[in-house]
Amino acid sequence: MANSSRAIVLVAFPNMTQLDFTGPAQVFAMWPETSVVVAAKTMDPVVTDCGWAIVPTVTFEDAPQADLLMVPGGDGTFDLLEDEPTLAFLRRQALGARLVTSVCTGSFLLAAAGLLTGKRATSHWASLPMLAEFGVIPVSERVVRDGDRVTSAGVTSGIDFAFELTLDEFGREAAEAIQLSLEYDPAPPVNRGNVALADPAFVAATLAAKRADRFERVRRAADRLAP
Amino acid sequence: MANSSRAIVLVAFPNMTQLDFTGPAQVFAMWPETSVVVAAKTMDPVVTDCGWAIVPTVTFEDAPQADLLMVPGGDGTFDLLEDEPTLAFLRRQALGARLVTSVCTGSFLLAAAGLLTGKRATSHWASLPMLAEFGVIPVSERVVRDGDRVTSAGVTSGIDFAFELTLDEFGREAAEAIQLSLEYDPAPPVNRGNVALADPAFVAATLAAKRADRFERVRRAADRLAP
Repeated sequence: MANSSRAIVLVAFPNMTQLDFTGPAQVFAMWPETSVVVAAKTMDPVVTDCGWAIVPTVTFEDAPQADLLMVPGGDGTFDLLEDEPTLAFLRRQALGARLVTSVCTGSFLLAAAGLLTGKRATSHWASLPMLAEFGVIPVSERVVRDGDRVTSAGVTSGIDFAFELTLDEFGREAAEAIQLSLEYDPAPPVNRGNVALADPAFVAATLAAKRADRFERVRRAADRLAP
Repeated sequence: MANSSRAIVLVAFPNMTQLDFTGPAQVFAMWPETSVVVAAKTMDPVVTDCGWAIVPTVTFEDAPQADLLMVPGGDGTFDLLEDEPTLAFLRRQALGARLVTSVCTGSFLLAAAGLLTGKRATSHWASLPMLAEFGVIPVSERVVRDGDRVTSAGVTSGIDFAFELTLDEFGREAAEAIQLSLEYDPAPPVNRGNVALADPAFVAATLAAKRADRFERVRRAADRLAP
């Protein structure tokens, strides 16, 4: 890995949604001449939303410059919206990164760092409207690109996001080979994974609940960004 | 978690394919009144195929009786086909488990423990034919059930497997709610995730390469099982 020409830096933090992180990680690990590093504040194991922990491979301080920076989401993002060490790390990495990306509510951390201001971006559907507080243009699509910013929607959208980047970077044949290796031929036995198909009353209640839980923290972080 | 009525035991081992493990784990973590534990030989962090590690929550010795036992796959499975502590743990757990399951080549570990003999089962397409060495009936489907044995195909099929079990255990409304929460509305940008769609020459070469790499270990383990 020391001689790898490209570094992908995956940011890890407590109470992240582990599949936001692990889905794309599996795809990126198959990219040629690429090292995938797990960067966190300290080397302590990071306890995910599933109750078990992932071990960082490097601290923020020692992380290499990312070619591709990725921030996962989860409840944990909303605890870090005013966390200067995390925001400073993202800003510093973003200066040199070719692609600055997120999965799920990871876009809120990028937004709180000022890295999505004025850009089109997405997030988990249940929090998406609150992105506007940061001067971001919320877009309800599975993967959203605005220049070198690439954001994806909730959790499993990170897998599609990683395949879209694979297609861009290495072409169709390489993307297909990775897809076949991961047998990514999804066949969900139920069909309510898209908010557009969901019960409107349930959607409204969930949006309201997430707003009640998170809006104050979002608003405070947004005020710090542009007082 | 101490009062949870149901334990899901996910087996962890070095060089497992982490998405085999982490995909279903995310779905299972959303089951009501369920504790998800990560069981390994020791409490040492388990380095996955992606280069970073997952921390076990319990040793084989201290693991609770699983209601649902799940074995992920990966190259690492083929290093454990004759590993008595691992095989003994699987056999002991299988005696009391209501469901004995695997993702990807995890079925080879179940088979080596004698837990799939005479049963229909699946695995990653590139290794599937070798399951027959253990007296297992290889089936090329994404999720295969034979009584209380449920096996799934390569890597990402584990997510569909977990949703099928969710549907069984908790019904359609619950499965849909978890699906919406994980925005599991897959949209791969390429369409070669199914071996039936892949280039036959590539498929043949991959089957031959996996056989060259793994057959000797498979055959030796199968001989131990039924000398």
